[in-house]
Amino acid sequence: MVSPLPALNVAAPAIELADWTHTMQRSVLRQMLAVVSRPGILSFAGGLPAPDLFPTADYSRALAQVLATDRGALQYGPPFAPLKAHIVRLMAERGVDCAPEQVFLTTGAQQALDVLTRLLLDDGGQVLLEEIVYTGIRQVVAPYRPRVLPVSTDLATGIEVEDVIDYLDGGARPAFLYIIPDAHNPLGVSLSQAKRRRLADVAVAYNLPILEDDPYGFLSYDGQCLPPVRAHNDSHVFYVGSFSKIMAPALRLGWLIAPEALLPKLTVIKEAGDLESSALTQRAVAAYLDGGHLPAHLARLNEEYRCRRDTMLAAMTRHFPEGVFWTTPRAGMFIWVTLPEHVDAGALLETAIERERVAFIPGQAFAQPGTAAANTMRLNFSNCCLADIEAGIERLGRVIGEVAGGG
Amino acid sequence: MVSPLPALNVAAPAIELADWTHTMQRSVLRQMLAVVSRPGILSFAGGLPAPDLFPTADYSRALAQVLATDRGALQYGPPFAPLKAHIVRLMAERGVDCAPEQVFLTTGAQQALDVLTRLLLDDGGQVLLEEIVYTGIRQVVAPYRPRVLPVSTDLATGIEVEDVIDYLDGGARPAFLYIIPDAHNPLGVSLSQAKRRRLADVAVAYNLPILEDDPYGFLSYDGQCLPPVRAHNDSHVFYVGSFSKIMAPALRLGWLIAPEALLPKLTVIKEAGDLESSALTQRAVAAYLDGGHLPAHLARLNEEYRCRRDTMLAAMTRHFPEGVFWTTPRAGMFIWVTLPEHVDAGALLETAIERERVAFIPGQAFAQPGTAAANTMRLNFSNCCLADIEAGIERLGRVIGEVAGGG
Repeated sequence: MVSPLPALNVAAPAIELADWTHTMQRSVLRQMLAVVSRPGILSFAGGLPAPDLFPTADYSRALAQVLATDRGALQYGPPFAPLKAHIVRLMAERGVDCAPEQVFLTTGAQQALDVLTRLLLDDGGQVLLEEIVYTGIRQVVAPYRPRVLPVSTDLATGIEVEDVIDYLDGGARPAFLYIIPDAHNPLGVSLSQAKRRRLADVAVAYNLPILEDDPYGFLSYDGQCLPPVRAHNDSHVFYVGSFSKIMAPALRLGWLIAPEALLPKLTVIKEAGDLESSALTQRAVAAYLDGGHLPAHLARLNEEYRCRRDTMLAAMTRHFPEGVFWTTPRAGMFIWVTLPEHVDAGALLETAIERERVAFIPGQAFAQPGTAAANTMRLNFSNCCLADIEAGIERLGRVIGEVAGGG
Repeated sequence: MVSPLPALNVAAPAIELADWTHTMQRSVLRQMLAVVSRPGILSFAGGLPAPDLFPTADYSRALAQVLATDRGALQYGPPFAPLKAHIVRLMAERGVDCAPEQVFLTTGAQQALDVLTRLLLDDGGQVLLEEIVYTGIRQVVAPYRPRVLPVSTDLATGIEVEDVIDYLDGGARPAFLYIIPDAHNPLGVSLSQAKRRRLADVAVAYNLPILEDDPYGFLSYDGQCLPPVRAHNDSHVFYVGSFSKIMAPALRLGWLIAPEALLPKLTVIKEAGDLESSALTQRAVAAYLDGGHLPAHLARLNEEYRCRRDTMLAAMTRHFPEGVFWTTPRAGMFIWVTLPEHVDAGALLETAIERERVAFIPGQAFAQPGTAAANTMRLNFSNCCLADIEAGIERLGRVIGEVAGGG
């Protein structure tokens, strides 16, 4: 015999959610992307690599080969050792010396950030983030409701390391500092060599873990490629790599170079998150790399993206009015534009879409609360053909010209 | 000019980790699996589906087709609507009425558990878990250091719902209850129809969210298939589905049926975890389902697994001594064995491996702290051929016979 239950409410009561979810914010960036992805809009807003440059045919062959020959391809399984060996070789080309025992495979670079945050950050702890920062890291730390210590960034040399030191000298105990060493998203800047070395020293001197997120590090449009901070420090730098920009995002495959002693803990955290990354994808990417396709593919990517970047920079020089400044990225996918101070990029976006059918992301979307970035915008150059870049910048220049001139 | 940094320690100091990591435990289960996966050991220990039953050729064709025809296959992209439509149809076959707007795609069922826990559980909050429980859910909740309220389980009818009510009547406010409605891992039991309905009522009456994890629900070896609790309650039950057991684990693709109003929050949480699940996999699975292959594939799986289950049960009847009891699973991959009380399954495992080269998982690996399960073990029947099942159970019976007889 079962006992009676309490009387039902007419309407079911609302489920109680975890406290932090009440302060949760949808990504402004993602909302904007939804708005500007309407047909007929020429968009520099997204952060997408060029799908016409994906190694589709070679990867399709790699998948077919693996499925035809490897009984473990669709099964659960441990991390695929041959892929780790490939990553060790890739890292050597990037100037980083590491062992397979330090390679940790993740479901994209984003999962690496999530797993590391779980490892390092306590509820209400401190984190060092740039004032203008990749929105994905803000989403990762949000559930911990951390105290964010904002650090400014020089548009020519990268994060202001002395600001980091000031916080540390002032007694701050951040769980980590997050950086993008090359082709910062959204700023487009790469860290100077001096700052790389300085950060490597600071990390050890202050026992400060650094999350070094390097999705664009294997791209280089000017032949110049400095090793990441991890090349100068293997005790405190957690290097995060990704196949999303050098092969394709839908692989959802990334990696972490971390101190070997921490891999068991990282494994437990990752298992809780998604058990493991796809055995099939791990094998297919390894087969693609076995085929020796990557160097030629990277060369083609670099040539194409350099051309798109240069086309956009040249068009900006022609079409943007005086008083507008921008970064010249050595790699990556983004140019950061600073408009005259009185220009509001959010209002500009509305006019640009309405009158000229062209879109971008206002820089404020990447700003920490309290950071003023109203007169900035991010332009993407990787996902448009040259004709669209030329036409779109001309149209955008008209809108900026009117508003900037009217200031 | 840069200021001098504090003097370096000779040895770099250890990185400070988040508090909870000091109580982190490696999965006993995973460690055991590593031990027993030695060559020459006949293993009933793992939880693997049979790789010879994966739809390898059809899925390979689906991948090739998608890569040849869909420009979005390797790109970032929103959840693939045709896959959601397929899942709505699958759920209808399972007796669950839902809309595409309630379907949320995840990187395997494990990610669904992780995302839901993040949505519902506060640090130090309460959760209702069975005393003998899937280890993956314990790994998910561990970082929150929750107060776990243990619930006992009847081996014929499933979780003791009246125990759940007792906790709730006693003032407990758990963030959720976790259940597996069919073919419980590790117990092999399926919930009785009465308990399904009762749980649906309890969830509403007490405003109790239920995480209903249903990886085996589309398998059924006796033609009998009860709808899950979600079929009786769409306000408080979060249904978790997976393609791992009905297609293949390496897809890393699962889904959640959740109240539509919560999908924006779930999206933000998932984006923080891994941005999105593979666009390629979503499209390839949809293409496979478009091809109409699944019903015949499920029929074949059910026939094969039924045969393996029946072979194991029959061999146990022949070779296990009196005083040993076991569950008869209607689906899934596991049989739960209860040995005479004085038998320690951990010690038995050592003897079994050493003398008879046969392995299983001692039940204690699935037990909450404080729950006694020393005389129990989990046997997997999905990943061995019939001859190995026959031979392995005979060998295991010899070891049990000696130890049980000697009590």
